[in-house]
Amino acid sequence: MNEFSLINKYFAESSFVRKDVIIGIGDDAAITQVPQNQSLATTTDTLLKGVHFLANTSPQDIAHKAIAVNLSDLAAMGAEPSWLSLSLTMPDADEVWLQGFSEKVAELTEYFSVQLIGGDTVKGPLSITITAQGFVPQDSVLTRDGAKNGDWIFVTGTLGDAGAGLDILRNKLTGDDASASDYLVARHRRPTPRVLAGTVLRRLASACIDVSDGLLQDVMHIAKASGTGVILHVDRLPISDALRSYVKDLHQAFGYAASAGDDYELLFTVPEEHRNTVQTALDSYSIMHTCIGQMTGAIGKLDLKLNEKPYTLYDCERVGYSHF
Amino acid sequence: MNEFSLINKYFAESSFVRKDVIIGIGDDAAITQVPQNQSLATTTDTLLKGVHFLANTSPQDIAHKAIAVNLSDLAAMGAEPSWLSLSLTMPDADEVWLQGFSEKVAELTEYFSVQLIGGDTVKGPLSITITAQGFVPQDSVLTRDGAKNGDWIFVTGTLGDAGAGLDILRNKLTGDDASASDYLVARHRRPTPRVLAGTVLRRLASACIDVSDGLLQDVMHIAKASGTGVILHVDRLPISDALRSYVKDLHQAFGYAASAGDDYELLFTVPEEHRNTVQTALDSYSIMHTCIGQMTGAIGKLDLKLNEKPYTLYDCERVGYSHF
Repeated sequence: MNEFSLINKYFAESSFVRKDVIIGIGDDAAITQVPQNQSLATTTDTLLKGVHFLANTSPQDIAHKAIAVNLSDLAAMGAEPSWLSLSLTMPDADEVWLQGFSEKVAELTEYFSVQLIGGDTVKGPLSITITAQGFVPQDSVLTRDGAKNGDWIFVTGTLGDAGAGLDILRNKLTGDDASASDYLVARHRRPTPRVLAGTVLRRLASACIDVSDGLLQDVMHIAKASGTGVILHVDRLPISDALRSYVKDLHQAFGYAASAGDDYELLFTVPEEHRNTVQTALDSYSIMHTCIGQMTGAIGKLDLKLNEKPYTLYDCERVGYSHF
Repeated sequence: MNEFSLINKYFAESSFVRKDVIIGIGDDAAITQVPQNQSLATTTDTLLKGVHFLANTSPQDIAHKAIAVNLSDLAAMGAEPSWLSLSLTMPDADEVWLQGFSEKVAELTEYFSVQLIGGDTVKGPLSITITAQGFVPQDSVLTRDGAKNGDWIFVTGTLGDAGAGLDILRNKLTGDDASASDYLVARHRRPTPRVLAGTVLRRLASACIDVSDGLLQDVMHIAKASGTGVILHVDRLPISDALRSYVKDLHQAFGYAASAGDDYELLFTVPEEHRNTVQTALDSYSIMHTCIGQMTGAIGKLDLKLNEKPYTLYDCERVGYSHF
C-alpha cells in the first residue's frame, strides 16, 4: 500500500469535521480560517518509541498521548484547540496498528472538537509528531513570564501518578494494590490535557505552564521567565489516593509528585486579588486545584518546605527528564 | 547539554523576526496573528535519514531541503509563508552539526521572511519534521481539483535535475561533465520552493501542485482530483542544459523529467482565457515556465506523446516514490 492510500484509508475520513476548515487532508496544505479577534496558538511535539513510550504500548495509547501532550501545551497558553497535523513514521504499514491508532485519533478529535487537517507518512522507526493549533484572544494569553512576588502557586489534579505508573511498567515500583496500579498506569498512558482549565484561567492566572518535565523543573521555568523565586510546600502537593496507597512511604509519593513529570496538569500562579475568583471559577467546573506555594522575590531560588520546615526530597537525583 | 539549552543556544535567536509573532520560541506554544481577510495554510513534512536524504548529507543541505519542501507545499496553494515549527530528532547533541543546521535555518528564514516559532528536540535516529504556516486570501487558494477539460498544463523551471543528481550521488549515473554534475546534485540537495510563482498564479491557474512525487504521479493527482485526463508532450518537457549534457541519451533525460520527482517545481493548469495573462505575469518576474500538455475529458487517462505520436518512457518502472 502506498502512502496516499494509507492516509486516505485511515485518516482522511476518521476525523471530526469543523466548519473553519476550508481544505483538509488531500491537497498540498490545509486551508483554515482563524476567527477575527483571535490569535493563533501553535505547538509541536514528537513522541519516539523507547523515549516517550515503551515498546509494548498499544497504538491507541500512543495516539492518546501524542494528542494529549500537544493539547496540554495549548491549554497552558489558555488556547482552545482547533486543528491537528500528524506526521507518522512507522516501520511498515501494519494495518492492525493503523486501525487502532486511527480509531483513537477519531475518538479524541471528536471529544475535543478538533479536526485532523493533514500530515505525512514515512517508513522508519516508530515516531509521531503532532502539530496542534488553536485560538486564544490576544489579551488573554497565558504565559510563563507574568508571575510576581507574592502570587500563589496552584496546580490542577494530582501529581506523581504518571511517574509512578511508568515505574510500575518498568518494574521499578511494585505493590499489592492492583486497582491502584491500573489507575497509575492509566495516568501515565492516557494523560488528560486540561483544556477547559486553561480557558477558565484566562485573564486570572499571572503565569501558566503544563507539568511535563516535572513540577520542580516546570515551576522553575516560570520563576526564571518571571524573575521570581519559589516556595513549595511539599506537604500540600496533591497526591491521589492510588499513589498514596501504592507507594506506602509518603516521602516517596512526594518525590514522584515533585519530580517525575508527564502529569500534564496545569501549574499556574494567581495574584492575591484573583485568588477567590479563580477558586470559585474552577470549582464551578469541578476542576480540582490545590494551592501548593507562593512566588518569592528571591530570584531563581527554590525553597522546599515540609510543615513549614526546610525539606530535602526522598529522591533528589530525579529532577525531570533531559534528552541530551 | 539538555534540550532547553540546545534550543536556546541554536535556535531561539537564529531566526528572522516578524511583527505578527506575539510569542515565539520559549513558551508552551507560539502565539501569532493571521491578517484579517487571509486564510491560514498549514503543511507538515518529515525528512528521515536514508529515506529523504543520504547519510552523508551536510546539516546545511538537510536544513535547506526540510524548509524547501514545506515552503513548496505552501507555494502550491498560492500561499505566502510566515512561520515554521521544527521538530528535530538527532542521535546526540553534535554541536558542529547543530551549528551548520541552525546557520542554514537562520539564512533561509531571513531569505523567505519567515520566523521559526517553536519546536521540539528528541534523542533518536536523525529526522526533521517541519510544519510551515502561511497566508492566502480565501478566494485565491490554488487547489488540485479545479482543472477542466482543455486547460493547458504548465510547469515552472526544468524537470529531472534532482532525480539525476540523486542517481549521481548513488553512483547509478556517471558522466564526464563535472560542472553539470555539480548543478544536478545541487538541484537534488537544495531545491528552490516556487513561492513567488505560487502567489502570481492566484486566481489565474485552475489547479496547482508541486512536483515532489514525479511529474506523472503529480499530474495524475490533479487529473484524479479534477475528474479529467491528461495529454503530456514528452518532447516539450523542460530539460536543463546540464541534464541534457550529462545523460547524453535524450530519452533517458525524458525519463528523469517525467518520473524522478523531488524537483519542487510548480505544475499547474490554466484555462485558455488566462493563458496569455499567466505567461505575461510569469515573464514579468522572470519565472521560467513551459506548456507541456493539456487536460482532456478522458477521466483518469494519461496519454504520453512524442512529436504527436504515442510514446513509452525509457524507464517506465520508475514512476515516483512510494514509502510502503
